[in-house]
Amino acid sequence: MSQVIAEISISLDGFAAGRNQGQEHPLGEGGERLHDWIVPTESWRRQHGKEGGETGPDNDVAAEFGRGVGAYVMGRNMFSPGRGEWDEGWRGWWGEDPPYHVPVFVLTHHPREPLPMEGGTTFHFVTEGIESALEQARAAAGDEDVLILGGADAIRQYLAAGLIDELRLHIAPIILGGGERLLENVGEPELEPVDVAASPAAMHVKYRVVR
Amino acid sequence: MSQVIAEISISLDGFAAGRNQGQEHPLGEGGERLHDWIVPTESWRRQHGKEGGETGPDNDVAAEFGRGVGAYVMGRNMFSPGRGEWDEGWRGWWGEDPPYHVPVFVLTHHPREPLPMEGGTTFHFVTEGIESALEQARAAAGDEDVLILGGADAIRQYLAAGLIDELRLHIAPIILGGGERLLENVGEPELEPVDVAASPAAMHVKYRVVR
Repeated sequence: MSQVIAEISISLDGFAAGRNQGQEHPLGEGGERLHDWIVPTESWRRQHGKEGGETGPDNDVAAEFGRGVGAYVMGRNMFSPGRGEWDEGWRGWWGEDPPYHVPVFVLTHHPREPLPMEGGTTFHFVTEGIESALEQARAAAGDEDVLILGGADAIRQYLAAGLIDELRLHIAPIILGGGERLLENVGEPELEPVDVAASPAAMHVKYRVVR
Repeated sequence: MSQVIAEISISLDGFAAGRNQGQEHPLGEGGERLHDWIVPTESWRRQHGKEGGETGPDNDVAAEFGRGVGAYVMGRNMFSPGRGEWDEGWRGWWGEDPPYHVPVFVLTHHPREPLPMEGGTTFHFVTEGIESALEQARAAAGDEDVLILGGADAIRQYLAAGLIDELRLHIAPIILGGGERLLENVGEPELEPVDVAASPAAMHVKYRVVR
């Protein structure tokens, strides 16, 4: 049965991005360190056309990314640095062949025609809100899962609306000290850990969200 | 070599206590759930004179508590619910035989004679600040470790002052949504995970604080 999964990396003090997010720092100042656990892995490197890399728990988690996922949802801030770039034909952060390979539904207030990329990824821009985006993603995914990629704001909205079945957190051992918190104003969902893996670089936890 | 260790349970959203701490809710509303991981363990039950209990990763962590510790430090709010009780001969939350069995240095602004309890615990009340308390605890501990027990405010102060060698967090899979945060205004200490254990009830992480 198709699941709605949210997956994101956060700091030990709960931030999904550091201070001063923008084109220079898409994840805020210091926020790129949230992904230090995945960048050296063999799986991530292969997805980016590179050889070699580390194996181990982080690589196992990296290798699982996207498995069984039929559609993604992401917030507008994850797709775009915001403001003017949107109208100037911004095509995302990921080059011409984004690592998704299925439809990606982008939450936004700005209508735009679907943007087909190489490798099977098409960005669809949804202006009718989170529930419409999820409905469209479910339809596109069929029997496969829908993965909410972030940013924090999008995941918060879906959590607060009770629409997430599984929350996957990658907790990096860093203190950002400020920025955008993930678990704030999400109500008090009951979380049941169903899988945990850890390395010196991150703790990876899957929670089932109990309805 | 003697280490200064801080150890505390926090929620997934980073709170060491819920809202409205006080005599009715020493750990705030819902805060007692922070300790759901330890209460059913065999080790905790034995320390409280009960038989049976669960074994596994949580019990291993519970069994390690206090091992090699020659003195403790705790904040005033951890010793006392605050206000009037202090002057009325409040003797702590732990009955006549507290689970410490060595000197415990309580940070406070209210001078008080040392309070010897059963089983080797003596509470000493330190009004000269966190550094003095640590100095006294180190002297009492000798070659053994000093453990900062909390609350969050005491650990924050020691972290911000760069006086912690090892931080042990027990991260419970609950969202408190409000209360007292642990990792706030502590600067940006560099943390290196040195040991991780996990169960469905909590993730247990030991970090070395890099100076």
